[in-house]
Amino acid sequence: MSPPPAGAVRLAAPVALPCDPDCSVLRDAVIDVDAAGRLGYCGPRAGAPTSDAPVRELPGLLLPGLVNAHCHSPMTVLRGIGGDLPLLRWLYEVIWPAESRLDAADVHAGMLLGCVEMLRSGVTTSVEMYFFTDAVIDAVLAAGSRAVVTPGIIAAPGWDRLGTWEQMRDDVSARIDAGGLRSGPAERIELGYGPHAAYTLPEVALPSVAEHARARGALLHMHVAESAGEDLEQRARFGSVPAMLDQLGVLGGRVLAAHGVQLSTSDIALLARAGAAVAHCPGSNAKLAAGVAPVAKLRAAGVPVGLGTDGPASSDDLDLWPQARLAALLARLGSGDAAALTAADVLLMATRDGAAAIGRDDLGALEPGRWADVVHLDLDDPAFVGIDDDAQLISNLVWAGGSRLVRDVWVAGEPVLADGEPTRVDRTAAQAAARAVAARLRT
Amino acid sequence: MSPPPAGAVRLAAPVALPCDPDCSVLRDAVIDVDAAGRLGYCGPRAGAPTSDAPVRELPGLLLPGLVNAHCHSPMTVLRGIGGDLPLLRWLYEVIWPAESRLDAADVHAGMLLGCVEMLRSGVTTSVEMYFFTDAVIDAVLAAGSRAVVTPGIIAAPGWDRLGTWEQMRDDVSARIDAGGLRSGPAERIELGYGPHAAYTLPEVALPSVAEHARARGALLHMHVAESAGEDLEQRARFGSVPAMLDQLGVLGGRVLAAHGVQLSTSDIALLARAGAAVAHCPGSNAKLAAGVAPVAKLRAAGVPVGLGTDGPASSDDLDLWPQARLAALLARLGSGDAAALTAADVLLMATRDGAAAIGRDDLGALEPGRWADVVHLDLDDPAFVGIDDDAQLISNLVWAGGSRLVRDVWVAGEPVLADGEPTRVDRTAAQAAARAVAARLRT
Repeated sequence: MSPPPAGAVRLAAPVALPCDPDCSVLRDAVIDVDAAGRLGYCGPRAGAPTSDAPVRELPGLLLPGLVNAHCHSPMTVLRGIGGDLPLLRWLYEVIWPAESRLDAADVHAGMLLGCVEMLRSGVTTSVEMYFFTDAVIDAVLAAGSRAVVTPGIIAAPGWDRLGTWEQMRDDVSARIDAGGLRSGPAERIELGYGPHAAYTLPEVALPSVAEHARARGALLHMHVAESAGEDLEQRARFGSVPAMLDQLGVLGGRVLAAHGVQLSTSDIALLARAGAAVAHCPGSNAKLAAGVAPVAKLRAAGVPVGLGTDGPASSDDLDLWPQARLAALLARLGSGDAAALTAADVLLMATRDGAAAIGRDDLGALEPGRWADVVHLDLDDPAFVGIDDDAQLISNLVWAGGSRLVRDVWVAGEPVLADGEPTRVDRTAAQAAARAVAARLRT
Repeated sequence: MSPPPAGAVRLAAPVALPCDPDCSVLRDAVIDVDAAGRLGYCGPRAGAPTSDAPVRELPGLLLPGLVNAHCHSPMTVLRGIGGDLPLLRWLYEVIWPAESRLDAADVHAGMLLGCVEMLRSGVTTSVEMYFFTDAVIDAVLAAGSRAVVTPGIIAAPGWDRLGTWEQMRDDVSARIDAGGLRSGPAERIELGYGPHAAYTLPEVALPSVAEHARARGALLHMHVAESAGEDLEQRARFGSVPAMLDQLGVLGGRVLAAHGVQLSTSDIALLARAGAAVAHCPGSNAKLAAGVAPVAKLRAAGVPVGLGTDGPASSDDLDLWPQARLAALLARLGSGDAAALTAADVLLMATRDGAAAIGRDDLGALEPGRWADVVHLDLDDPAFVGIDDDAQLISNLVWAGGSRLVRDVWVAGEPVLADGEPTRVDRTAAQAAARAVAARLRT
């Protein structure tokens, strides 16, 4: 199962979508990867510099690895339980009791299956909020994937089994202080802070965690205004959760607000002014009947918006392609404007904008200097009727394509998915391990 | 490319979803297919009758073929053009001008690719509204698929190139009178009438077409109340399109209303009283910003509701799985009720209820006497964490599964898809033919 060591390589393909701001289409494209796993030249073959790197000729379409900006991937082991409940009942009555029975090995099994599933849909980076941090990190590294790991910080009933919120905060800080913000081969792991939500932490916790995060340049990743039924006390006192975060001094650093469904115009202005970003999770929000985030307004205000699947107990998969389509569909329904979000818009949200939302300008695009996280899609599919026209190609990809097209994936130039199968993980074993955990949870 | 002749066969698999009204799950299941392509015993292997038919042991999950209750599949050749316009501008400015350039060979190419795409997603029956009827029928028969072909009847600008609405109506009647309502091997083709919409036909056409349909027991398949911007005159005169259809005597036979987005409570009651059905097309309606059909209310009123993809120029694929998920998501968002439509509900909408909506009690379920239209899904996938629990299995299938799982498909017991590839069509050639048409349309 061991892949060859990463080395300089030239990837060549008939089409590439570098995910530059114009969402341009390269024909007869060449992507150079250096020995450190960073991108060099990305452009037409005709203009490529001479190179003695081996050339890998690929028949399909090259794309940067997708960024899943909000998830709890170890919840693959909980997939499909409590499927028809609203958010808070689902959380308190089904999910948290089940999660209280998970040990580190279970979380490892769930995360490993999640990484496999994400790589098979072209997701190379995910922003994870969960517990048993070592298990999460080990699984990401085992799969050869990339993650921003923001361990959950929470003080809700039952969670004290994992310690106090201060201990959870300090654990992250100690990890960063000891090993740096980014670590692992090709900086595959970035650490951040995952204060769960306003309604699951004492008020004092939020500025304190924010201070720890800011002092270390780390991402603060938090559920914000997900559903109307939550944060009732907080909203009564501060007006809204963004207003609360602003008044408590939480905004200002790298802040990623997951969901952002219940946002007023002034909340949006607040987030924009503070340079905060939003992870839009349309599928989870719809499935739990929470609502639809004001994506078009957020984008218009300059707030970077990425896409998230949320955890696979609510979403229920870790495939970002349906989320991209759903983002466009819901924006159109909500506005009555059939051009509210275009195919190119949501493709960029899944890549470049997602990277921007999590504060990473080294991911999410095929551009010199960024990490060579690359996806190779099969073009031999009924979807690609308009393959020779740039706009039609992007439309076909977003509206009729999807994860079934993903053939190969590289992270930092290293092959981690080859012909649809993970190179470093035994998929059958990973599935069996997750099924065993799920079966035990049902007893 | 020629398949073996259909004969009696026993299909056996660890799991089957017969799509009975309870959406039950059979374990260690056996499905008997007789030499005529009809289903016999469908149940646990332990209770199966003795049989000397060859047994095909399959490793996955068996499901009835899905029913795509509203589409214009030849529009695969138009996939991805005019993607960001509202319904009427999209129709008048982009789609109709492009369609005016299609000849019968183009429609055949589009329909053939559509059939391939549908079989690969497990759709065995589609309700087609298009023109060049012989081309549509030939393509369906070539693929070994099944369709209710309801040729479009329209009197809008430009369409007189194909004749008057009376000629279009009479063409269908003449076909039925000559060859019967159902024809082809295993009755693969059923004919019906496709009056396009209230706003594209003179008022007198609707009762006249309805009379022809009723006299022949044929399906009347029509766009009804798709968007707020259409049918303005008709709604001013009659109050609503369903009220118009009722007052003109159109309701009463087999009526399939496509879309049904703009429906009042009294419209719903009218449709229910008349025994009319609705083809819900959530993706198309959202993409064109038309709105969301009141599915939960229609179902509560007893109106059979199937699922449709609509044509692949608006939807843009012919895959019913995303439509099933989207139906549930939109019903939940619209009602604020996270159980508005369950996974089992939408699975039945894609199968049994879809068959009921198009007036076919011989399709859409694995039950003795129905046609052996069967789909075999791969269970070797990260989706199936809850494989051993019935509710969790259905949830995993609907919320995390999809067309990537489709391995084999039989229509009337005959293999038409084997290991993901069509048995009777050269997929590569079908794709190339459709791409050539699309390229010509761009010039």
